[in-house]
Amino acid sequence: MSSKNKLGLAVAQMGPVHLSDSRAAVVARLVEMMREAKSRGARLVVFPELALTTFFPRYWMSEEEAQARFFEPTMPNAQVQPLFDEARRLGIGFYLGYAELSPEGRPYNTSILVDQQANIVGRYRKVHLPGHSEHKPDAPFQHLEKKFFDVGDKPWGVWDAMGARIGMALCNDRRWPETWRVMSLQSAEVVVLGYNTPSQNIHWDEPVHLRMHHHLITLQASAYQNCVWAAAAAKCGREDGFHMIGGSVIVAPTGEIAAQASTEEDEVLCVNADLDLAAAFRKNVFDFARHRRPEHYGLIVERVGPGEPLPQAQ
Amino acid sequence: MSSKNKLGLAVAQMGPVHLSDSRAAVVARLVEMMREAKSRGARLVVFPELALTTFFPRYWMSEEEAQARFFEPTMPNAQVQPLFDEARRLGIGFYLGYAELSPEGRPYNTSILVDQQANIVGRYRKVHLPGHSEHKPDAPFQHLEKKFFDVGDKPWGVWDAMGARIGMALCNDRRWPETWRVMSLQSAEVVVLGYNTPSQNIHWDEPVHLRMHHHLITLQASAYQNCVWAAAAAKCGREDGFHMIGGSVIVAPTGEIAAQASTEEDEVLCVNADLDLAAAFRKNVFDFARHRRPEHYGLIVERVGPGEPLPQAQ
Repeated sequence: MSSKNKLGLAVAQMGPVHLSDSRAAVVARLVEMMREAKSRGARLVVFPELALTTFFPRYWMSEEEAQARFFEPTMPNAQVQPLFDEARRLGIGFYLGYAELSPEGRPYNTSILVDQQANIVGRYRKVHLPGHSEHKPDAPFQHLEKKFFDVGDKPWGVWDAMGARIGMALCNDRRWPETWRVMSLQSAEVVVLGYNTPSQNIHWDEPVHLRMHHHLITLQASAYQNCVWAAAAAKCGREDGFHMIGGSVIVAPTGEIAAQASTEEDEVLCVNADLDLAAAFRKNVFDFARHRRPEHYGLIVERVGPGEPLPQAQ
Repeated sequence: MSSKNKLGLAVAQMGPVHLSDSRAAVVARLVEMMREAKSRGARLVVFPELALTTFFPRYWMSEEEAQARFFEPTMPNAQVQPLFDEARRLGIGFYLGYAELSPEGRPYNTSILVDQQANIVGRYRKVHLPGHSEHKPDAPFQHLEKKFFDVGDKPWGVWDAMGARIGMALCNDRRWPETWRVMSLQSAEVVVLGYNTPSQNIHWDEPVHLRMHHHLITLQASAYQNCVWAAAAAKCGREDGFHMIGGSVIVAPTGEIAAQASTEEDEVLCVNADLDLAAAFRKNVFDFARHRRPEHYGLIVERVGPGEPLPQAQ
């Protein structure tokens, strides 16, 4: 598992975290999965988005209440310290999503990348916030990410850690091709992300089976199109009765699923990911420098929403 | 089939066109499939890329020889006129790919959109040219698009025709997420494209089964991510012994395959495509104006090839 161009890559899917679950109980579950990941050869383990608490954007409450109950003003902190301690002891890196109250007092949906010495080496604040900010009293539950979080203040970054070049995203980001492209243009070899995806889309009557389908096809196509390994960790199952999809996966740069969760519980996936495969696709299929044509991509940054057709000479 | 928000959408896959096949014989095949498409309710039929000839970029020759044998200096011309005549008679629109020698004498890999009165209403010149320009004497065949064609002089356009807003792409374009996004940002409802995809990638030892896999996952993810119907027409099978994949498909904005070819021969697919489904995804899932964040997408147009990580404060 220590080959120079391979990365022991684990995903730690989580079953539900209920409102009554303490941070200590959650961290104990993360520590247990971290140990399993290490025992199976992982150098990096990916935990979900908002891993320390229930998916609280489903509940209507004030920003002040949400921040008091569900946000972390410091990281690490006393409750999460055991996870950092165990990472250092085992020599394993990790990705963790949590609700961050920044030093400036701003609320973000954040992930961190922590190296094998338990140093925080990267931080990403979610850019694509789904849902809404107003109360929808007739909906079966809320999706209040636009109320509780600020839009991330920087693009997606990539970091050299655990012997690989690793990019971070969060949940809804994975549905937007721009997310992946910005990391691939920074030479990412691996993209890691966590997600909480309700199995019901409250915004319209979307067939439930499509939720898993969209999750998988976007990960598969994006890994292929961007020549990266993709590792995605769900928090899933019924949190206090509100169901979210599982389907945690590790996808190869071939666009093929290398490992997929088979439960909606705590479950560890592990793959010995060949980073040379990502390089082979970069060289032989998607040699960006030879083939990309940014002079024709302008609309992607010039427009936010859809507009009229470009003028055409005929 | 004439519901206001539905489009009878057909794909006419083609089996091989050999070097010895005449334009007249090819056009007769296209006319026959056009009739079938019309009889099955289509208002638009999509033909392949370089539909009038064999996929000649596999053969080493001079530009002059290629242009003399395989390019069309005018469109329509006497050999292709029967297709335009039949379209007007039937009242059906079509998309056709061919090698264009422009009025300025430039060579392009081109597609046209022709309306139900047989008027050419749109023209697209391929932007993403795969392959190489130099002779590879050790390869089993060549892929000389970079030798025989200029890069298209404009981005992907969309046109209002056949009661829908239709965008055009060609072959390799479908693998690049920028292609789809530029059309979706012009409010495309349907994206049509033709392709010739050799089942062997001559640039490296890529497993053959991945060629179909990549074709399908990129079409499915792109249709979903961009809220469009996607219709893709192959020219396939063994042209003078050189095999190309089939797998022509019509993909819904759900990312699901609505129809797929089951042969590597001439074969017509037809779907009564609900354009309201595309609108539902635009409104309820990918409301670009609410969710996109172009301020973080800059690298997509600022970089051609991959580079170093963006600086990160820590």
